[in-house]
Amino acid sequence: MANINESSQVRASFEGLVSPKSVAIIGASKDEKKLGFQILKNIQTGGYKGKIYPINLKEKEIAGLKAFAAIDEIGTPVDLAIIVIPAGLVTPEVKKCASVGTKNIIIISAGFNESGVAGKAREEELKKLGDEFGINILGPNCLGEINTAVSLNATFARSKGRSGEVAFISQSGAICSAVLDWAEKREVGFSKFISLGNKAVLDENDFFEYLAADKSTKLVIAYLEDIKSGRKFMAAASRLCKIKPVAILKAGQSKAGAAAAMSHTGSLAGSQEAVLAAMRRSGVIILESLEEMFNLIAFSQRQTELGSKELFVVSNAGGPLVLVADQLSSQGIDLGELSAKTIDKLKKKLPPIINVKNPLDIIGDADAKRFKLALETVLDDDKVQNLLVLLTPQTATEVEKTAEVIGQLGNKHKDKMICTSFIGEGSVEKAKEMLAKENIVNFSFPDAAIKILAKLIKYQAGREFLEPYNYQKTDDLPASDYDEQLDFFEAQALLKSYEIDVVPTRKVENEEALVELEYPAVLKVVGKKLIHKTERRAIALNLRSEKEAALFYAGFLPMLREEGNSCITQPMIEEGIEIIVGFKRDKSFGPLIMVGLGGIYAEIFKDVAIEVDDLDRRRALEMLKGLNAYKILNGARGRTYDVESLVTLLLNLAKLARERKEIKELDLNPLFVKQKGAVAVDFRIIV
Amino acid sequence: MANINESSQVRASFEGLVSPKSVAIIGASKDEKKLGFQILKNIQTGGYKGKIYPINLKEKEIAGLKAFAAIDEIGTPVDLAIIVIPAGLVTPEVKKCASVGTKNIIIISAGFNESGVAGKAREEELKKLGDEFGINILGPNCLGEINTAVSLNATFARSKGRSGEVAFISQSGAICSAVLDWAEKREVGFSKFISLGNKAVLDENDFFEYLAADKSTKLVIAYLEDIKSGRKFMAAASRLCKIKPVAILKAGQSKAGAAAAMSHTGSLAGSQEAVLAAMRRSGVIILESLEEMFNLIAFSQRQTELGSKELFVVSNAGGPLVLVADQLSSQGIDLGELSAKTIDKLKKKLPPIINVKNPLDIIGDADAKRFKLALETVLDDDKVQNLLVLLTPQTATEVEKTAEVIGQLGNKHKDKMICTSFIGEGSVEKAKEMLAKENIVNFSFPDAAIKILAKLIKYQAGREFLEPYNYQKTDDLPASDYDEQLDFFEAQALLKSYEIDVVPTRKVENEEALVELEYPAVLKVVGKKLIHKTERRAIALNLRSEKEAALFYAGFLPMLREEGNSCITQPMIEEGIEIIVGFKRDKSFGPLIMVGLGGIYAEIFKDVAIEVDDLDRRRALEMLKGLNAYKILNGARGRTYDVESLVTLLLNLAKLARERKEIKELDLNPLFVKQKGAVAVDFRIIV
Repeated sequence: MANINESSQVRASFEGLVSPKSVAIIGASKDEKKLGFQILKNIQTGGYKGKIYPINLKEKEIAGLKAFAAIDEIGTPVDLAIIVIPAGLVTPEVKKCASVGTKNIIIISAGFNESGVAGKAREEELKKLGDEFGINILGPNCLGEINTAVSLNATFARSKGRSGEVAFISQSGAICSAVLDWAEKREVGFSKFISLGNKAVLDENDFFEYLAADKSTKLVIAYLEDIKSGRKFMAAASRLCKIKPVAILKAGQSKAGAAAAMSHTGSLAGSQEAVLAAMRRSGVIILESLEEMFNLIAFSQRQTELGSKELFVVSNAGGPLVLVADQLSSQGIDLGELSAKTIDKLKKKLPPIINVKNPLDIIGDADAKRFKLALETVLDDDKVQNLLVLLTPQTATEVEKTAEVIGQLGNKHKDKMICTSFIGEGSVEKAKEMLAKENIVNFSFPDAAIKILAKLIKYQAGREFLEPYNYQKTDDLPASDYDEQLDFFEAQALLKSYEIDVVPTRKVENEEALVELEYPAVLKVVGKKLIHKTERRAIALNLRSEKEAALFYAGFLPMLREEGNSCITQPMIEEGIEIIVGFKRDKSFGPLIMVGLGGIYAEIFKDVAIEVDDLDRRRALEMLKGLNAYKILNGARGRTYDVESLVTLLLNLAKLARERKEIKELDLNPLFVKQKGAVAVDFRIIV
Repeated sequence: MANINESSQVRASFEGLVSPKSVAIIGASKDEKKLGFQILKNIQTGGYKGKIYPINLKEKEIAGLKAFAAIDEIGTPVDLAIIVIPAGLVTPEVKKCASVGTKNIIIISAGFNESGVAGKAREEELKKLGDEFGINILGPNCLGEINTAVSLNATFARSKGRSGEVAFISQSGAICSAVLDWAEKREVGFSKFISLGNKAVLDENDFFEYLAADKSTKLVIAYLEDIKSGRKFMAAASRLCKIKPVAILKAGQSKAGAAAAMSHTGSLAGSQEAVLAAMRRSGVIILESLEEMFNLIAFSQRQTELGSKELFVVSNAGGPLVLVADQLSSQGIDLGELSAKTIDKLKKKLPPIINVKNPLDIIGDADAKRFKLALETVLDDDKVQNLLVLLTPQTATEVEKTAEVIGQLGNKHKDKMICTSFIGEGSVEKAKEMLAKENIVNFSFPDAAIKILAKLIKYQAGREFLEPYNYQKTDDLPASDYDEQLDFFEAQALLKSYEIDVVPTRKVENEEALVELEYPAVLKVVGKKLIHKTERRAIALNLRSEKEAALFYAGFLPMLREEGNSCITQPMIEEGIEIIVGFKRDKSFGPLIMVGLGGIYAEIFKDVAIEVDDLDRRRALEMLKGLNAYKILNGARGRTYDVESLVTLLLNLAKLARERKEIKELDLNPLFVKQKGAVAVDFRIIV
């Protein structure tokens, strides 16, 4: 397995961490209140077949197992050590593990980065040890891990973790607890369950790599609070997403927060935008709430791959169907069309009052028999791959009998996505349990199912085009705090060398030179230290005569006396759409390429698209299509503009961003996209 | 009670419908499978104290009560008749009711508007009878009604309906069933529960009027599929909202649908937009999903009025708190600040590792005692009126003991809004029940509580300014299918008479007149039949000389030969922001006033605000503030524009729309809002 972590020593394979043949619990205890007891008990009673070594300074035996005073006294190599002792005692134990060749450690203990200066120092020490000895360290300050494939529950959670196809990774222990508690009751299973803790050594990226090849995992769900290595994240997540769906709930990503960060050019590519761009680039399913995360886990218990993009709906309730139609339309999901044969069959079988189509309203007096007639006919149609059954408990409704019918059909059509929304509570409770037993997921309200469906459909469509993100450690920028602006002509030359057109520009050496200009003309003062030209009134547009030009030139004179400033002239551009293009280098995520509407409406509409640096033609065009301004470029006002040129320019810009690592920020503002070509009028390059 | 329904005869008071002293069930039955049995049983066993008369052609006695062959054989007046017989037999029974002075009828029977031509004819007949005799008819095709104040359950639903402060009104029977089923299990109560059915005679507006004065109702929630009488709706809903919160889930209102309807000017004020504008105007809380509707019902079991706009949060889980912060920021809710005294107290009571602030993270190892210390201190602070308690079940968490603490504090602070989000399932199940018993509402996820809170806060803030919408039947427009454009000068005179500035315009009678123009100038051809001036190339802008003008004038000549066309000239306006203003008369909701950004970006950004016709200065300004373009008007680019003039113009336009009922549609496009004043350059008035 290629490991994209860069450590002094190559990190050990994950097999010993995730599927160890032997486990030592350093801090195993007889005291039922201690985590060291709970973890040992969970491992012992969970069906784990490997060797278990309790490590305890005082005890000779714990829970019927021989106990050792230290890992180096066992006398045989141990694959995985789990450390549950006070923080201050952890480092020596890690060293002992290293000395006996134990390359996998889970540190449950808290008292590290999250608790003061001493804790931070301890965590630094852990990182060093991890790197020095190439040890996989999970945690510290975590709940542990579960691998149902080998019946290993190496957590102190009360619930045991059922077997399933979803791998769950979480940076919050509190959320781990909540998910396990919910899953226990719902009979929801996991392939792997990983509590990342403080991520001192291992982080989400390492597990993404591992899970790509893990056959027992069909879907990966992660809750993350920070993504520290943005480019590594894109590399690992994009490779994983190409193989199986990955859904991430990233806390701290509120739209309001992102919008606030996204002000004009300057802070446009704030870190929230960077995280979103990186998730989009990697093909990740972006989750928006805890509820949606739980819903996806539930949804995926039946299926993680959809057979088609269309949804079919059968319901005994008209009102909720109207709401479903609203929701489908807002989520962009199509209602499929039943085949002519199916329609014929349904017309013969169902009461004539029923309007046979998708969605199919079999009306309020539908009993279980009518549900059966409708559902089995619909499910026999090959076009029907995704089916949602809506039910509200009305007088004639046979709730449980209907659930039984759905369960049977669910088993018959195991390859089809079938979910239900039985709306209500008391009358539908038992039915929900019956459905769960038959692996049919019920949603309290249909919206939740539709949202998840929309995200899976989008994921599957995007996967086709998904390319892995390539990352080398050398792509990262050495930190430099000093910002400087490139000289105008230097910048212009650089842009030209990347085939980015700049409007013809000449120096104006003195007032006499104004005679030679072609009017209407533009005069500007440029200089390394002159960053805000508009505010400094260093721009004069649309000058119609030498007389007007002379007036402004005179006004420029004080500025021109400042060191490094000079006066330039350009022709006035009167054709085209004003666009802003640029990039900003994020230390973690690399250059973020930006394109948006320019001109006076730029700030108020923030019509902007952001992408990461390995742009290709398809994605560059997608960026443009995501803009409202695209409609204008594409002819909404009767004239079309040179979109192809703009796409090429974006690709050239991305190339420049990748190759010229010393450039922190670059803006072309404005860039005029014309009916033929695109030309930059002003620009700013910060190194 | 003033009744805004216009019928031939004044409709009877609602008392007899909602709190009848006697009830006849026409179609009462001994057969347990029949609705006539279930309704009788529900009334009999629900605790209703009034007289009950079963009506059945064959039986002498039903359920221990003397039965009658018809209502006119009872021999004494009956307040309310409930009809549950086949549709074809209903009309004669309604007539009998009228003959004995029964003024209130609930028609449960289906088989009317929803079922073919015969059904439609039957419903028309019902409407006529309702009007002729001034009878309140609820239904047909409905579930019935519940009034817990008099223990009357006149529905065939299985659940009995608990007493509470929420009135629920629904146009969908399936949703009635689902709500009752859910409420039964959750021990959620209602003051009134109304199934509107087909709304042949009574609709939501009648109940809104009634509920305004109903002291047992503190909150009204309605599910609606159509709003047929828009202006009556606004009149009834705005009056009710001034008194108590009203929340409406309007099916068929997807954002996607609304967006599609909202294309440039033409269909800008489509009916979805009209419904939204009407709900906003009325101060209604707009619900977006069934789930949100259920959540609001749950939320309001504790409180329907909030003591402040700020939220306080106490949690044992850090991860969910990050998500809560995201959510609060996106919903625009402020986290309040604890008083200095409270902070001091908390610092003394809580472990030093805890960072005392709002939101308060009492960290993962918090037991019930720590929850108690934190919560009682926080709740003693007068600033804390709204409190959300978050919990995930972790190792040290005492879930049920914590629920007990919250329940006790909830009882002590009955006037404060306290809700919880215990995230998980198995471990928190019992705690949720305990909380519900103490009237603390638990949400599976905090987002739901925050969304509801945000809507109630917004409602309360808006209520202060809410004015009733005045509606007279005469405001409605007589239908006219023929559309005609007003002549330019006629239109100009009309606008001027409403103090709407139009750019100085003169007729150009012939080519010779071009000499007298001041250049740069504009030339246009106008005429009653010339609606699309741009497409017809009937506009020449920015003409700089007589020569240029003559060229275009020559091009206009063929158009000028068409009947009714003439050439006009205007000065070229070069200053100001291009805005579009107008109105479109909706047959149900009246004139919808529109203002939005004009110019080339109008179509792509759809930066538009819509209001109904009784605009005042405050709301006109709110419209503008809702636009992105407002930032520019208000100085985002360094120059401020005359917002006051634009507000005045909107008010004048609304006055014109109200007074000139023959005008179907009016656009000022473009209108230039200048640094001083606002002037219309082109316009179109359709009568």
